[in-house]
Amino acid sequence: MSFPHVSHPPRPLGVAVIGYAFMGQAHSNAWHSVANHFDVPAFEQKVLVGRDSEAVAAAGRKYGWSESATDWREVISRDDIDIVDICAPGWLHAQIATAALAAGKHVLVEKPLANSVAEAESMLAAAQAARSAGVRSMVGFTYRRIPALTLARQLIADGRLGTIRQVRASYLQDWLTDESAPMTWRLRKETAGSGALGDIASHAIDQIQYLLGQRVTEVNGRLHTFVPQRPGPNGLETVSVDDAVWATLALDGGAVASVEVSRVALGQKNALRVEVYGTGGSITFNLENPNELYFFDGTDPKDVQGFRRILVTEPEHPYIAGWWPQGHVLGWEHSFTHQIRDFLLNIQNGTDPSPSFEEGLAVQRVLAGIETSAAKDGITVAIAAPTSKD
Amino acid sequence: MSFPHVSHPPRPLGVAVIGYAFMGQAHSNAWHSVANHFDVPAFEQKVLVGRDSEAVAAAGRKYGWSESATDWREVISRDDIDIVDICAPGWLHAQIATAALAAGKHVLVEKPLANSVAEAESMLAAAQAARSAGVRSMVGFTYRRIPALTLARQLIADGRLGTIRQVRASYLQDWLTDESAPMTWRLRKETAGSGALGDIASHAIDQIQYLLGQRVTEVNGRLHTFVPQRPGPNGLETVSVDDAVWATLALDGGAVASVEVSRVALGQKNALRVEVYGTGGSITFNLENPNELYFFDGTDPKDVQGFRRILVTEPEHPYIAGWWPQGHVLGWEHSFTHQIRDFLLNIQNGTDPSPSFEEGLAVQRVLAGIETSAAKDGITVAIAAPTSKD
Amino acid sequence: MSFPHVSHPPRPLGVAVIGYAFMGQAHSNAWHSVANHFDVPAFEQKVLVGRDSEAVAAAGRKYGWSESATDWREVISRDDIDIVDICAPGWLHAQIATAALAAGKHVLVEKPLANSVAEAESMLAAAQAARSAGVRSMVGFTYRRIPALTLARQLIADGRLGTIRQVRASYLQDWLTDESAPMTWRLRKETAGSGALGDIASHAIDQIQYLLGQRVTEVNGRLHTFVPQRPGPNGLETVSVDDAVWATLALDGGAVASVEVSRVALGQKNALRVEVYGTGGSITFNLENPNELYFFDGTDPKDVQGFRRILVTEPEHPYIAGWWPQGHVLGWEHSFTHQIRDFLLNIQNGTDPSPSFEEGLAVQRVLAGIETSAAKDGITVAIAAPTSKD
Amino acid sequence: MSFPHVSHPPRPLGVAVIGYAFMGQAHSNAWHSVANHFDVPAFEQKVLVGRDSEAVAAAGRKYGWSESATDWREVISRDDIDIVDICAPGWLHAQIATAALAAGKHVLVEKPLANSVAEAESMLAAAQAARSAGVRSMVGFTYRRIPALTLARQLIADGRLGTIRQVRASYLQDWLTDESAPMTWRLRKETAGSGALGDIASHAIDQIQYLLGQRVTEVNGRLHTFVPQRPGPNGLETVSVDDAVWATLALDGGAVASVEVSRVALGQKNALRVEVYGTGGSITFNLENPNELYFFDGTDPKDVQGFRRILVTEPEHPYIAGWWPQGHVLGWEHSFTHQIRDFLLNIQNGTDPSPSFEEGLAVQRVLAGIETSAAKDGITVAIAAPTSKD
Repeated sequence: MSFPHVSHPPRPLGVAVIGYAFMGQAHSNAWHSVANHFDVPAFEQKVLVGRDSEAVAAAGRKYGWSESATDWREVISRDDIDIVDICAPGWLHAQIATAALAAGKHVLVEKPLANSVAEAESMLAAAQAARSAGVRSMVGFTYRRIPALTLARQLIADGRLGTIRQVRASYLQDWLTDESAPMTWRLRKETAGSGALGDIASHAIDQIQYLLGQRVTEVNGRLHTFVPQRPGPNGLETVSVDDAVWATLALDGGAVASVEVSRVALGQKNALRVEVYGTGGSITFNLENPNELYFFDGTDPKDVQGFRRILVTEPEHPYIAGWWPQGHVLGWEHSFTHQIRDFLLNIQNGTDPSPSFEEGLAVQRVLAGIETSAAKDGITVAIAAPTSKD
Repeated sequence: MSFPHVSHPPRPLGVAVIGYAFMGQAHSNAWHSVANHFDVPAFEQKVLVGRDSEAVAAAGRKYGWSESATDWREVISRDDIDIVDICAPGWLHAQIATAALAAGKHVLVEKPLANSVAEAESMLAAAQAARSAGVRSMVGFTYRRIPALTLARQLIADGRLGTIRQVRASYLQDWLTDESAPMTWRLRKETAGSGALGDIASHAIDQIQYLLGQRVTEVNGRLHTFVPQRPGPNGLETVSVDDAVWATLALDGGAVASVEVSRVALGQKNALRVEVYGTGGSITFNLENPNELYFFDGTDPKDVQGFRRILVTEPEHPYIAGWWPQGHVLGWEHSFTHQIRDFLLNIQNGTDPSPSFEEGLAVQRVLAGIETSAAKDGITVAIAAPTSKD
Repeated sequence: MSFPHVSHPPRPLGVAVIGYAFMGQAHSNAWHSVANHFDVPAFEQKVLVGRDSEAVAAAGRKYGWSESATDWREVISRDDIDIVDICAPGWLHAQIATAALAAGKHVLVEKPLANSVAEAESMLAAAQAARSAGVRSMVGFTYRRIPALTLARQLIADGRLGTIRQVRASYLQDWLTDESAPMTWRLRKETAGSGALGDIASHAIDQIQYLLGQRVTEVNGRLHTFVPQRPGPNGLETVSVDDAVWATLALDGGAVASVEVSRVALGQKNALRVEVYGTGGSITFNLENPNELYFFDGTDPKDVQGFRRILVTEPEHPYIAGWWPQGHVLGWEHSFTHQIRDFLLNIQNGTDPSPSFEEGLAVQRVLAGIETSAAKDGITVAIAAPTSKD
Repeated sequence: MSFPHVSHPPRPLGVAVIGYAFMGQAHSNAWHSVANHFDVPAFEQKVLVGRDSEAVAAAGRKYGWSESATDWREVISRDDIDIVDICAPGWLHAQIATAALAAGKHVLVEKPLANSVAEAESMLAAAQAARSAGVRSMVGFTYRRIPALTLARQLIADGRLGTIRQVRASYLQDWLTDESAPMTWRLRKETAGSGALGDIASHAIDQIQYLLGQRVTEVNGRLHTFVPQRPGPNGLETVSVDDAVWATLALDGGAVASVEVSRVALGQKNALRVEVYGTGGSITFNLENPNELYFFDGTDPKDVQGFRRILVTEPEHPYIAGWWPQGHVLGWEHSFTHQIRDFLLNIQNGTDPSPSFEEGLAVQRVLAGIETSAAKDGITVAIAAPTSKD
């Protein structure tokens, strides 16, 4: 397959978002606000796409889209659409992304990249083919762009923590605690791919690889479903995905990481917690307080060492210059705005976004490795390194 | 003075914001985002007004305004402008608000209402005159609409804390710690009215009266300027406002409150902290973690009593239904969006907004009382009750 | 009055504690444990003194005393008693201390030094007279010897916080919240001297002067009694002391401090909180977590500034070498053990202990100043500087 | 083997502690203080035993022992010794405990029970044989007697958390972070048995079984040594134990627990953290703040749910009545005092202490299971249930 090199017309970039549920709303919000805070190339919120024509029309009006549509294939074939932002459920990622890339559209796709390694590989192949023609692709591990985590990455990359030895990442929620919470597509393997694993362990795993700049080489995993049946419209149905996941990961730089995620951890609302322990310093973070990064500097004088609470709202901190003066905190959705900003700048500058589909595939392989290990009594499973094909 | 009753044309409400600095940006952001999250009457971001034509034009484009302008008098005379949102410095509040109200425009004005009680009284007179014609007026004590504080107000109003005895409110910042920080209009009495007093003690005082539903009846105050001179373009200039304020307030329901604010409290970035102690329960709050309310319920079993951290992001909580699922936190600026929402609904429903100019004047009188007390060695100063004229 | 110079016999120092209630137990515990953790001169737990012979005998046996007694005058006349540790209620401090000092006994007296300035002055005179003969005297502001606060003092004295500008000290408890809590001697002016003022504001005031090494020069104060009557054995009785106190203090080094204390702050159990803001750094502390000191270092790189939690359990920290390895925290009573250690070392080394009676009197004068100010509508009251007589 | 039934003479119980290092000091402190705070049977601190005669003599004097000795065999043969408290290194536990039990002495032995399952089984056999004669035995998992954790156990046992699903236990320290920290007996398998596994994972595992009242049935484990060589007196030596451990545990009541421990987690000083998630409530705890228990009550009204910080210092809370009024916190070593209290009461009342050697062996089997799993690529290992012999 070959592509003509993408050269943007002298008009604003046309954007379509596919999906208008939770993620569709979050992405719409980011598209709507990004230019108010950051200098980005001109674009237009063209089309919001969804299956229910009435609902998507209402959502489109509310979220600032010029049009709505129900047929994503038609939308990605339009000449006035340059960017396709995929917020549809996971089982649709591969086909939409592949088609959009083939049509020469820049693609942003929500995490995880796909429901399976095979799908992710096909998406990566499409992205690589398109890349040579200047078509950009990105996977939406948004939390990399929470200023506190971006700062954490910088501190680690600058060696402020020394050599990283140990990482603890957990992501605990409680919205499935009640066993009378109803059956949904998110609880069926065929539609969701997995449960907490793909939904939230994917975030934890991406963070580990992102923060450390290291690759997972082997995993041990355990999955568990605490509530095996849930009420559907016609009685109890079988939950075919996990409620909780435990894993240990070995990384190629010598670190060992643990991952624990759950959707039945009562009282934890959206607690992505990360702890990174190095030879020279350590950091901790909790998504429920996303403006705070805790940093222990092993080079401080011994009598005043301690984890310091950095309120990541200073002009010196990543992304903050676009927002408010110090101490005026950001919310959860701001990382989506940062993601759109960076994606637009990549398009403008002709550079490849990160996290790339390669990075999305890397997470997918770790997820698959955890499932394999869990199916084999927890035994160590090696994670394939990227090949020249990746 | 008499007004024709305001009856809105069947077109969207036309909005002008006056001022494009920090508050102008925060209000613009709220106007730009409110309809994406809440059902509000139709409106248009018409004009952004500022003194520097080039700068305001750039800001206007960035923040989503159709036009920009430099002459606020002209703007408030336009037929297509229905709402005037005043984010100009405090010394301009009275003249702009009075003129806008006289022109039949709904007015939202940033806090504090004015630089003096006399100005505030004139503004209230204008608001009362206009009110009979259906013209709405509101003062921007935004923090009332932080969901955690709105919830706190509900808990207190519902009697969940019993009778309130003691309140501690402090607002600590540190941006003036460095004595080489330069002289600005905010540090001159003639332009700023006061220092930390009007800027941040006003927030603390409004919160106390709002949360308790009680009125301050007497005060003791102390002001202090730790850095009496700061560098201006031609050498050191005299700082004529306070860096820090201490006050105790007696309230008409029997509570006693303390207020302490500072702009030289190194390490505190935007720490509006409120503690309310009742006979049956207590709450604490810190603006640096605005999604959290801490609540001590004296009716809990004795062995498990304790301050609980309520993450105020549940659908049951105020304003949250317009945003994200539980645990996905809001930022500082969201309270501005809630303020615009409520202001628009007041206009639509023909109801008077709160905080009203009466409430703004009440705060102004407390501020003036603190200054008077401070000038008289801290002696108790009575705060005038609202009169029928108020 | 003149004393022969005290020269200790070659036998262990004989110790008597007067009082066996809460403070008597805490001091007994310290006497019982100090030698197990620190190198101190030899001493013997000779006598525990109290009014109820049976109860004091039981307490004496339990707390490790060789004897018990009911007549303190007799005890202080004994040749085998070298140290008198006064834990009796405040109204007895002056007479016991004066008599003990006159008898050539080293005296440790619980805080506050006395119930009035006049009593405190007489005690100081006795201490000064005795001092020339080598008799040591100390007042029990124990919290100076919580390692975290001793460390705080060191950081400030070493200039790590620059010039101190602002101090916030509060001490909140809730044991009088319930208005059915019964009348006791602590709630009558004639026995207790004052309420929260002498009981807990004294701690806050001593901390401020201790940490800063500055002296209070003027005060404004307010007192309030939220529950003016409480049930006694024969019906409601009048509470003649304060439930809560508010004060601002000016210090001779230019700092301004606020003090707020309460025994009706529901949910706060023993929350002595101190915040010190300097030009170069800041610290915060809370007695409910006494092993933690929070320190903000203004010289840290801008991108990683923040309050750090120092767990004050390292061998480098004050007093810790006598206890456990790092991370093994101390409790509330350990500061009493440190106090006894230092008192014994002062006796051994022939040096004067701190806090001295001069320091105790200084606190007493601030307490009196607050009462005077409160009685005069909060007006500023000057605090007498120590004279050559002090 | 058979024992005459133990009938205590009408003299105080004679106590010997074997070992005078960290644990010997902690136990000595508990023996020295227990009777000052709790009503316990009369006992005497008879002998402290250690290998270095001079050092143990000095320690004995300091910690309140009447005598010191170097030959533990001789000491346990003495008629005036009734209780042997074993604080010697792990490789000596089995021989000392077995001999002491055979001699009819009550035995308290530090955790973990032994260095191997075989040793633990032999110790249990000795304990069971002695038990029929009224000889008591206990293993020192002290943290069960931290009031916050005892309270946690009560809440769980009372059903306040519903059915427990998920437990997270971690124990992080940092004293081996520096790779120049020297080689010691704790880092050699032949003396220490294991590294962080036996030293601190044992605490985590015991807590899990204790809190839930459930038994571990299978484990997956991983061990890692980050610093494989450390400096000895003659150059680098090989570290033959683990620095860190990860494990997942399945429990017989259906819960799944994770364990992660480390001695190289820079910045964590003594952070035993436990989180327990149930269907109706949750708790969290951190040993660095041992007076606090966080409790989420799922039956609270939805708008005020949240983790509450219980300051476990109320008279209603376990063990607190022996100490101070509310809000006056305890330290790390107080749990040792509670342990001695309960052990003495068991002896007095003729009841068997908990944790028993059975419980100690149960932990030992989990530790061994983790090692086995780690040696087999993390595969699931079943944990033997107690047999009639256990």
